[in-house]
Amino acid sequence: MSVFLSEKKYLLSSDSAKEIYSEIKFLPIVDPHNHANVAELDANTNYADLWQLCAATDHYIWEMLRKRGVPESHITGSADNKDKWLKLCSVFPEFAGNPAYEWIHLDLRRYLGIDDLICPENGQKIWDAGIEVLKKEGKKPLGLLKKMNVETMCSTDDPADDLRHHEALNHRLGKLFVRPTWRPDRIMNILADDWFDAVARLEKRFSAEIVSADDLVAVLRKSHDFFAEHGCVSSDHGVDIPPTGTGDKALADKIFRMAKTGVRPNPAEAQCYKDWIFGEFARLDSEKDWVFQIHIGAVRDVRQYLFKQIGRDSGGDVSNHFMDIQPPLVKLLNRFDDRLKVVLYCLDPGHQATLATVAMAFGQKVRLGSAWWLCDTPVGMRRQLEYICSVDLLANFAGMVSDSRKLLSYGSRFEMFRRVLSDVLGGMVELGQMPSGVAVMLAERICYSETKRFFLL
Amino acid sequence: MSVFLSEKKYLLSSDSAKEIYSEIKFLPIVDPHNHANVAELDANTNYADLWQLCAATDHYIWEMLRKRGVPESHITGSADNKDKWLKLCSVFPEFAGNPAYEWIHLDLRRYLGIDDLICPENGQKIWDAGIEVLKKEGKKPLGLLKKMNVETMCSTDDPADDLRHHEALNHRLGKLFVRPTWRPDRIMNILADDWFDAVARLEKRFSAEIVSADDLVAVLRKSHDFFAEHGCVSSDHGVDIPPTGTGDKALADKIFRMAKTGVRPNPAEAQCYKDWIFGEFARLDSEKDWVFQIHIGAVRDVRQYLFKQIGRDSGGDVSNHFMDIQPPLVKLLNRFDDRLKVVLYCLDPGHQATLATVAMAFGQKVRLGSAWWLCDTPVGMRRQLEYICSVDLLANFAGMVSDSRKLLSYGSRFEMFRRVLSDVLGGMVELGQMPSGVAVMLAERICYSETKRFFLL
Amino acid sequence: MSVFLSEKKYLLSSDSAKEIYSEIKFLPIVDPHNHANVAELDANTNYADLWQLCAATDHYIWEMLRKRGVPESHITGSADNKDKWLKLCSVFPEFAGNPAYEWIHLDLRRYLGIDDLICPENGQKIWDAGIEVLKKEGKKPLGLLKKMNVETMCSTDDPADDLRHHEALNHRLGKLFVRPTWRPDRIMNILADDWFDAVARLEKRFSAEIVSADDLVAVLRKSHDFFAEHGCVSSDHGVDIPPTGTGDKALADKIFRMAKTGVRPNPAEAQCYKDWIFGEFARLDSEKDWVFQIHIGAVRDVRQYLFKQIGRDSGGDVSNHFMDIQPPLVKLLNRFDDRLKVVLYCLDPGHQATLATVAMAFGQKVRLGSAWWLCDTPVGMRRQLEYICSVDLLANFAGMVSDSRKLLSYGSRFEMFRRVLSDVLGGMVELGQMPSGVAVMLAERICYSETKRFFLL
Repeated sequence: MSVFLSEKKYLLSSDSAKEIYSEIKFLPIVDPHNHANVAELDANTNYADLWQLCAATDHYIWEMLRKRGVPESHITGSADNKDKWLKLCSVFPEFAGNPAYEWIHLDLRRYLGIDDLICPENGQKIWDAGIEVLKKEGKKPLGLLKKMNVETMCSTDDPADDLRHHEALNHRLGKLFVRPTWRPDRIMNILADDWFDAVARLEKRFSAEIVSADDLVAVLRKSHDFFAEHGCVSSDHGVDIPPTGTGDKALADKIFRMAKTGVRPNPAEAQCYKDWIFGEFARLDSEKDWVFQIHIGAVRDVRQYLFKQIGRDSGGDVSNHFMDIQPPLVKLLNRFDDRLKVVLYCLDPGHQATLATVAMAFGQKVRLGSAWWLCDTPVGMRRQLEYICSVDLLANFAGMVSDSRKLLSYGSRFEMFRRVLSDVLGGMVELGQMPSGVAVMLAERICYSETKRFFLL
Repeated sequence: MSVFLSEKKYLLSSDSAKEIYSEIKFLPIVDPHNHANVAELDANTNYADLWQLCAATDHYIWEMLRKRGVPESHITGSADNKDKWLKLCSVFPEFAGNPAYEWIHLDLRRYLGIDDLICPENGQKIWDAGIEVLKKEGKKPLGLLKKMNVETMCSTDDPADDLRHHEALNHRLGKLFVRPTWRPDRIMNILADDWFDAVARLEKRFSAEIVSADDLVAVLRKSHDFFAEHGCVSSDHGVDIPPTGTGDKALADKIFRMAKTGVRPNPAEAQCYKDWIFGEFARLDSEKDWVFQIHIGAVRDVRQYLFKQIGRDSGGDVSNHFMDIQPPLVKLLNRFDDRLKVVLYCLDPGHQATLATVAMAFGQKVRLGSAWWLCDTPVGMRRQLEYICSVDLLANFAGMVSDSRKLLSYGSRFEMFRRVLSDVLGGMVELGQMPSGVAVMLAERICYSETKRFFLL
Repeated sequence: MSVFLSEKKYLLSSDSAKEIYSEIKFLPIVDPHNHANVAELDANTNYADLWQLCAATDHYIWEMLRKRGVPESHITGSADNKDKWLKLCSVFPEFAGNPAYEWIHLDLRRYLGIDDLICPENGQKIWDAGIEVLKKEGKKPLGLLKKMNVETMCSTDDPADDLRHHEALNHRLGKLFVRPTWRPDRIMNILADDWFDAVARLEKRFSAEIVSADDLVAVLRKSHDFFAEHGCVSSDHGVDIPPTGTGDKALADKIFRMAKTGVRPNPAEAQCYKDWIFGEFARLDSEKDWVFQIHIGAVRDVRQYLFKQIGRDSGGDVSNHFMDIQPPLVKLLNRFDDRLKVVLYCLDPGHQATLATVAMAFGQKVRLGSAWWLCDTPVGMRRQLEYICSVDLLANFAGMVSDSRKLLSYGSRFEMFRRVLSDVLGGMVELGQMPSGVAVMLAERICYSETKRFFLL
């Protein structure tokens, strides 16, 4: 495999980059945002095979298989895992250039000791090796997390969740290893088909009837308090254009009451409700000094075929540059100025400059989050870090998150990020823009200490 | 000229890049989109001089001459070709940095054997050398195409075209060398001054009266069939924001009938007609498994002075980031999901991310086309390739097209593309992101085999 | 400090870059746009200390101090300068990556001979050294400008300004050293709180009652003439979306008369007035062959807390990609086609492509200005120069401006620009895209001779 994925050279183009990376590579991973399956961690049973470990829960991979003409039967369908894996290997060289090509190679090498090139010829051999190695005690979920040097991680959870898996797991480990994150999107998306059920679940969970806006806030506060008791330190919100957080409460109350009777609000009414409740979410976070994370700009489930056949989180998501995100975001930030910690995650590169200037303008508590989703690649991370350097301060960057639904990603994504960060900083040292000691200081803060401080981890 | 345009180093910054390029440089050129003057190819007479060959048909060059203060008399006006050429040379060093500076130098060196720096001092000498060399038998259009190693190329043609030059030329060559491409823009642009004439031409061409929407589709189908018989494998469409392809037929019929009587539709009516007919175009392509090429985002002829004095395709074209291209495009793609091969060409870099995510989301038949027009430069191509790598797959990239109105461009633009592609892939090999063998495989597919397969060439 | 800010290596990544830079580094500085305090220059008294020199007037620095949690008392507040300076040093290493980190280090080294790393440990030592060195005769404002090799500079001035400091200073120096620039923003911004006062100031300045649109233009012309007599060669305009320059005069007259009576126009009326008066500004410039500079895309004072506490130009400014800048700009350029020299400054990187294509489309008199404000960084300048190369011509680039409110910036910002320009051109020489002689010719023109020619300096 020549220099492919060489530990020494991978993504590090200068001596300064290599030096910086050598100083941060051993730091523990702190992951403030991911989609961990906490039940899976709690159960801690061995993975059956490589498909289950590497692809079964990862719709990035599914989309690439589709792009290479693999039929749905061998992606989300009924083919057995081995056939799916072999199909994956049959097209895997055609993934080259996409970071997934590097992630899966890295995962197999670093966590399973399988160092073969993934290609049609090696498919069977790697499959067999995977079956063997995954039987081992150390390859259970918790063993892999230890191997990946994960110190703490924050999952993403519905406000109605009872967090029993978090509780059981952390109790067993004797520490706050997996913290929940409060994600109330479904309560906000009043036009979505599952809004009514989401509110009903909340009513059931807290044995309360929710009739009015006040009722809703009261129950949300109970949930927020409950999450806090379980170590939660942040909320998370997925939006296309952020609501303002300044909607009129009286009006929102009317709209909520109406929607509860089954009458669908019109778009303006829905926006008013969202503008109001987004402010309530922020207020709850502000009171507890939580971090308010906003994922901005995703347009989800636009491919009707996929959405109808398979449902949410299966692919068919895009970004759109054409969104006026700045005015509503500024309203929110003005309302909570200096009273709310905020992290802004950017999906469309066309929004990056706007968000960077907004982060710069609103002082120390408003920060840019790591390059998100389709930007979470060497190119996307590099471009974002270069831009943050220019406009804002790297010292204010909120740091890396895995954002993954797949356990092994917690390692390989951080590895890729740390190497790219080292390369960007190393490039600046090489060009005489900062001393190497300062670069190492920044790298360490971004990768570990400042993230812990900001998120209260 | 020191290392300027050195065969070994030009645009290749690493050993890996040089190695990859050495593997693909001899591949024949397959050009699925250009603006070839097929009558010129069919006539196959010698070019008179370098102005005629290098600048007379190229409004890129005209615009740069204007930027350097050359009067219109020496661009599109009545000055003689030699004076125009000498004027071009007098400002040519000031073109440096723009790819046209490299293209014309490359063209003269590689296809005419003229290896002088283009500058005021060398203007006369190069002119004289051009006169001599262009007299040779091998420097006729077909000889130059052979020298450029062009295997097949697709021109751009009006549905009313009788394709007799294509027929005569291919007959003489004994193979499908130049294929037509079906470009029905003028039939769609119902608000343009030449719409009525375009429909009239179609009526005359197929001896049919077109009164209704049904009539129109019937005649378009005849044209589409006729093009198919002449080797056509794709249609092409130039739009700012893509129509949805889902316009109401009954309404479109009414609007068409009205417009045929000379009543101008209002903007909403025009949009409805476009939304409908765009879908008809796509349906015809879908039935024949043609490639539906969409050039998105050009705003043409905004400089009134040029448009009034010289007319279309003379310059004065811009791009605009502020266009909501995603929602209508998604409608089109959903309607024909998995039933239509589509290539998306992007003009404004601000649209690139949106288009890349849309291409990623809609499976194997929807692909990104090469960096278009003002992006078709080393910087534009590099940024696009890096972004495709990140979000989509290079293996799904539709590959290079020359898109040119100038014969020599078929060589120099592909040369530039192949070198940039090799440099991007070589950079990834150097950083350990893929093995060099995989990089060569991808480069070969992108430059030759996958393009042939996708376009059925 | 190892290679940090090494004279030989700083921002120069190749031998070609170093060679080009060595050819242009001694060129005098010509600065067509800045926010010089001409009264300060005229007074020419020694600076008291480093805070006054480096930070007291620079809201870039203020914003970064806020991002690192420094309280407002130590930024714009009442703490004494030494305490402010020590606070700055205490967080200064955390500025690394942002160009301000490099600027201040460069300034201290090159103009004051202080070559220590700015950090908490060195704060007191550097402060003391600053006190000593700033007492020297040569460190007065005019001495520093001489040391920076500034040949001529253009300040930014209100049309009501009497320019007495310009007059006194230039008289004393015996040459047109500081030229005024005519900036009538406040006369245009009819909805702003200070519009009425701005018009009143103009009335007082020219002892004229301004009742109608005609009156307004007559007085503006007097001011414009007065500026011309004092060496002015350009106007400057700060806008979010540029007005069209084609507003209806009769309507504008009505709106102006109404506003003068204290009735606030509605947004559509305000736009009509702006569209009209912007055209009047352009007409005045066109008649005198001045350069019409447009700064596009800033959204100012969005952080309410700052604006209320401290006021304008104190921070809280952002950019927004979501602006439709092309259609109105095209209207303006068509109206004055080939009769008005225009420089377009771009703030949001998402607008850059649109503006570059517009500059390309409108001939030799329309040019792109240097990367503005938050883009005026190594990364921002590099990306802009690469893009100009691609789409437009570097030979048409309007060149560098300091745009600064801080005297020392006139040196360090030009230094940074010249190095980045050399590096971009050097990179093209290394890749064989142009001969080094041509690169040096372009660099010289951009840095000196073409700027003087275009601005008539």
